[in-house]
Amino acid sequence: MAKKEKTAITPTREEDYPEWYQQIVRAADLAEPSPVRGCMVIKPWGYATWENIREVLDRMFKETGHVNAYFPLLIPLSFLEKEAEHVDGFAKECAVVTHHRLIAGPDGRLIPDGELDEPLVVRPTSETIIGASYAKWVQSYRDLPILINQWANVVRWEMRPRLFLRTTEFLWQEGHTAHETRAEAWDETLQMLEVYKTFAEEYMAIPVITGEKSAGERFPGAVNTFCIEAMMQDRKALQAGTSHFLGQNFAKASKIMYLGRDGKQEHAWTTSWGVSTRLIGGMIMTHGDDNGMIMPPRLAPSHCAILPIIRNEDDRATALEYCNQLKAQLQQQTYHGAPVRVELDDRDINAGEKGWQWVKKGIPVTVEVGPREVSEGSVFVARRDKSRKERFSQTRDQFCGEIAGLLDQIQSDLLTRAREFRERHTRSIEDLADFRSFFTPESAEKPGIHGGFAISAWCGQSECESRINSELGVSIRCIPMDSTDSDAPCVFCGTAGSKPVVFAKAY
Amino acid sequence: MAKKEKTAITPTREEDYPEWYQQIVRAADLAEPSPVRGCMVIKPWGYATWENIREVLDRMFKETGHVNAYFPLLIPLSFLEKEAEHVDGFAKECAVVTHHRLIAGPDGRLIPDGELDEPLVVRPTSETIIGASYAKWVQSYRDLPILINQWANVVRWEMRPRLFLRTTEFLWQEGHTAHETRAEAWDETLQMLEVYKTFAEEYMAIPVITGEKSAGERFPGAVNTFCIEAMMQDRKALQAGTSHFLGQNFAKASKIMYLGRDGKQEHAWTTSWGVSTRLIGGMIMTHGDDNGMIMPPRLAPSHCAILPIIRNEDDRATALEYCNQLKAQLQQQTYHGAPVRVELDDRDINAGEKGWQWVKKGIPVTVEVGPREVSEGSVFVARRDKSRKERFSQTRDQFCGEIAGLLDQIQSDLLTRAREFRERHTRSIEDLADFRSFFTPESAEKPGIHGGFAISAWCGQSECESRINSELGVSIRCIPMDSTDSDAPCVFCGTAGSKPVVFAKAY
Repeated sequence: MAKKEKTAITPTREEDYPEWYQQIVRAADLAEPSPVRGCMVIKPWGYATWENIREVLDRMFKETGHVNAYFPLLIPLSFLEKEAEHVDGFAKECAVVTHHRLIAGPDGRLIPDGELDEPLVVRPTSETIIGASYAKWVQSYRDLPILINQWANVVRWEMRPRLFLRTTEFLWQEGHTAHETRAEAWDETLQMLEVYKTFAEEYMAIPVITGEKSAGERFPGAVNTFCIEAMMQDRKALQAGTSHFLGQNFAKASKIMYLGRDGKQEHAWTTSWGVSTRLIGGMIMTHGDDNGMIMPPRLAPSHCAILPIIRNEDDRATALEYCNQLKAQLQQQTYHGAPVRVELDDRDINAGEKGWQWVKKGIPVTVEVGPREVSEGSVFVARRDKSRKERFSQTRDQFCGEIAGLLDQIQSDLLTRAREFRERHTRSIEDLADFRSFFTPESAEKPGIHGGFAISAWCGQSECESRINSELGVSIRCIPMDSTDSDAPCVFCGTAGSKPVVFAKAY
Repeated sequence: MAKKEKTAITPTREEDYPEWYQQIVRAADLAEPSPVRGCMVIKPWGYATWENIREVLDRMFKETGHVNAYFPLLIPLSFLEKEAEHVDGFAKECAVVTHHRLIAGPDGRLIPDGELDEPLVVRPTSETIIGASYAKWVQSYRDLPILINQWANVVRWEMRPRLFLRTTEFLWQEGHTAHETRAEAWDETLQMLEVYKTFAEEYMAIPVITGEKSAGERFPGAVNTFCIEAMMQDRKALQAGTSHFLGQNFAKASKIMYLGRDGKQEHAWTTSWGVSTRLIGGMIMTHGDDNGMIMPPRLAPSHCAILPIIRNEDDRATALEYCNQLKAQLQQQTYHGAPVRVELDDRDINAGEKGWQWVKKGIPVTVEVGPREVSEGSVFVARRDKSRKERFSQTRDQFCGEIAGLLDQIQSDLLTRAREFRERHTRSIEDLADFRSFFTPESAEKPGIHGGFAISAWCGQSECESRINSELGVSIRCIPMDSTDSDAPCVFCGTAGSKPVVFAKAY
């Protein structure tokens, strides 16, 4: 038996995937739990990743005609109550503000005071409060469409928090649009779904399946919910973004009405769509390995770390001068329209420890510079996505000239690897026994490992959906966009003419 | 008597300054009150202004070595209580979360449920929650300094809200740094004050006085509070940003300790500094006129509006083609490193109304294009900061070639005008009777208009400070940075050797 290779993260993915995830978030210095139950502190390396996500998405939203605005954090309870399904969906997880000041209590400790006439809910999502503004702004069809996005924090009380994936407070964007016609709102819903897919694949290097949610998985109050679904390395699905066609439900709840071209009062058609800091969790679980995070270059806070190797104090000045020149030369290079982001890590700590820190953080490229490199005018390059055995030497000029290409190569290799992983663990299954065994753990030692994504025909009945969910913990992730009625019988009840849909265990 | 010129904003600044302010916020489409008392909706034009502010400041913070991170919105009450002055300062204005879900009450309406063991406060500021993280992160002097900034929303319950100036929820940035030595923390405090001054003057075109707050006006828990103070057009002062030297107060409260170079445990030295969406209120009150907002070009959401004047349907296609070419040509121009931001307003509405909308929004330059301009290859240009009588004609090429220079000219003219205004209304006053009359309204018809900023000697005693405050509503805005002990007697009590400080009525 081969000796187990030492890894920077313990346990490994195979040993204990959920614990591996917690350890990687910590080791990569992305975030940590906060003293407030369910909330997280997003540390600088994690937040810089979010800033990059935000910058790209913001540009994509603006290119598709949207503008940003900002609406209140606090929502009157009565607003939430306006849409019945909506309030049912969120009532169990709302942080409620009931008082507006603190006074000293009998024992001198502070207690809440100044009770509000109407409690306020910390927004779990903003359809109702934004709807109140749109109702004022929209009078005529000339005021439509309204195409607004908001970058904000939201709070959904979380009993089983996991950093990035499920936290009481999280950061997100929420687009809210209002349209004159059903067709326009429908097109908007699907357009934003495509924006999310493009972003996931081209920037996060995460292949996704786009599709529609089943009725049971819809956003509370939506007519149709569309999503992008990705496969993590434990073969479970992560819903990475949603785009909702809200029909006239919220327009009716909020009274968003316009005078139509025909002189009649009509309710507007609305959409909403969002992605959150959960995406960072998805990047970790798609690309991370047993040595830590692997950042896709297009979103990495930094692209390249330069690590001077100083064995001898006499070499220090020469090595640092060389490294500074290298840094400047790299920063003159452009990667997708912006300068390459470079760190020169000249901290006076153990070189091995220093190198591992960057590995764990997942910086795409590290460059070691020792006396040999200085004398040769070379660099010793490691790609984070390759084994350390594949490190290579290159002249400094060649490395700098090719850095953008190297980053692009890493970006595309990550996507390919993730796509191949997903394909390897996706199966068309027609038989219920096969379906059950696909979702049964392979062995008692690896309770988390099961088949992956099953593409199976489903009759469209919620009975079949909920039965398989309670039996196997498997849900319908989506009805893929290209899915059409087929001749296949439902894998559960045998009803003919069922649609192939994606089944998986999910986050 | 000359006929009163018609203005777009009613009332004018002179007629009723506070009401003029409300009207301009509405007319410029910057923000509006929300259904939640004290909160505002920041509309796209206002939010785009905030985005520009954020982008510039963020770059300045990063250039001075700071990184961004994100800390929880909700703060346990016990954290707030750790610093006695701090909690006293904020207790009266805290939104308190006491429950984490809603259930149907006896009458079917929802009521709060799931009472929390410990109430949570929606952050009014984050010293205490960030301090809890720093206490974990800092072990040794090697972990210092920590130089972090956060962009966030905060809530301070506001009884007398005014859009942008004073709202229950507002957006801001808060820098929080921890240092090994007193000197470093002190330097950081003053460095960030300088960053704010540079930003105010070079970007917002608002001249500011930097100085220290008197003890009574300090941030609760700070050792020293420094500020930038600006004069508005009603001659009142606006505190536009603050930088606090916190000494070891918060480090002691949060137990931020490090092992020093001498092997002893020490408390860190901390600072905090912030500016908020209030800055937009400051820009309105510094630059706005009786026709609306005037945006300083470096922060304007858009620099130039192109307004096609179509008198005759036959001209439409030619005019729009010309305008589209003009737009493309302008967008190829660079203003401070980014493309010139251009709007082509081809909405089919009344041309006069359309033009006034842009005037009210304060776009720096508007260009009218009618049949004459199309045939001549020219444009008809209006500067927002000049009278309509000064509009001029220019060839299209010349206009495009000079747009960056024109914007720079507007930017610097706005600053000059604001500086001259402030100087005109600032007076050194040695005599108490003069001081009183300086702060007494000039006439009953204009109750808001008084002298402006008085530079007068003050003995440093809080008695003199609070007496003049209750008598005249005048406060010490700051002890200017360049102020030194003088021979002058205190204007109130006559104590010799007092310091000249800035007195004003304030927002």
